[in-house]
Amino acid sequence: MKIVVLRLSHRYVRDDRATSHLFLVARAFGADGVIYTGQRDRKIEATIQEITEAWGGIFDVKYRKNGAEVLKEWKRRGGDIIHLSMYGLSIQNVVEVIRMSPADKLIVVGGAKVPKYVYEEADWNVAVTSQPHSEISAVSIFLHELLEGRELSKSFKNAELVIVPQVRGKKIVRGSGRGCGL
Amino acid sequence: MKIVVLRLSHRYVRDDRATSHLFLVARAFGADGVIYTGQRDRKIEATIQEITEAWGGIFDVKYRKNGAEVLKEWKRRGGDIIHLSMYGLSIQNVVEVIRMSPADKLIVVGGAKVPKYVYEEADWNVAVTSQPHSEISAVSIFLHELLEGRELSKSFKNAELVIVPQVRGKKIVRGSGRGCGL
Repeated sequence: MKIVVLRLSHRYVRDDRATSHLFLVARAFGADGVIYTGQRDRKIEATIQEITEAWGGIFDVKYRKNGAEVLKEWKRRGGDIIHLSMYGLSIQNVVEVIRMSPADKLIVVGGAKVPKYVYEEADWNVAVTSQPHSEISAVSIFLHELLEGRELSKSFKNAELVIVPQVRGKKIVRGSGRGCGL
Repeated sequence: MKIVVLRLSHRYVRDDRATSHLFLVARAFGADGVIYTGQRDRKIEATIQEITEAWGGIFDVKYRKNGAEVLKEWKRRGGDIIHLSMYGLSIQNVVEVIRMSPADKLIVVGGAKVPKYVYEEADWNVAVTSQPHSEISAVSIFLHELLEGRELSKSFKNAELVIVPQVRGKKIVRGSGRGCGL
């Protein structure tokens, strides 16, 4: 099952940090890549590529002009679309059904104003709590629930840097380049 | 069990959005309040207060100059200190032990550079994956695991606004002011 996060309506500079964090969360929690729309931001693309080279694994960042087209293509290929929104159905009530579908998953998170077509095209509109918080936490919790915590022990292959968990302090070792289980 | 998130070294303007999102995540995922150090930011304090008034519940934002003192006081009162850091022990291996302790929990997240005393004073240094991502997702996953998902159906009392989960679209109702279960 392939998992991709689609981030709509990125704004250059203003969303810099939020979007980078979102992409890093997608990577750390087991997504295969991200697609984003809005303003193209080559700096973020470069940052995520550098981090992926250093910390391992394969992670793809793609820019697309038209979000509606991304959704249509995803559907045409038989994938599931999950839109994370505080207005949707509670994650604890729907995640099991979503998990049972073996189709690829596109997880959509909006910008300031989400166009109506996203609610319409989504197979599931899912709320990670119906309280205001952050798309960053919403994506992490959704992936964590979808993958049932398996993402926490995901192996990132060909990492240059690998952390060895410590009771106190920091320990980073250079990766062997032969695949480093974390 | 009282849960408070301590955010160290907030920087005015630069960390605006990251810190607000972090505070909202703490609130949405069941913490009773946050404490922050660094530069005081009355705008964020006002924003969080407004959101709490609109969306219900009790949530406390406190500014403190000295993070080391906050840790000392917390310890003196018998509370547990959990420092979230990518260098710590993997959450999946330690969260059960942490959950078994009935003591109040202080969850510490650092800024750019975390002082050594935080690693030393913490009862647990905990990694939510050993990959780079975001303190926002780290706090959400830690609280979600600590509270075993119960936070997802937390009731926020005296809310002015309450979302009614929908398959598609948005439905917000005015709260009764008598406590609105979400």
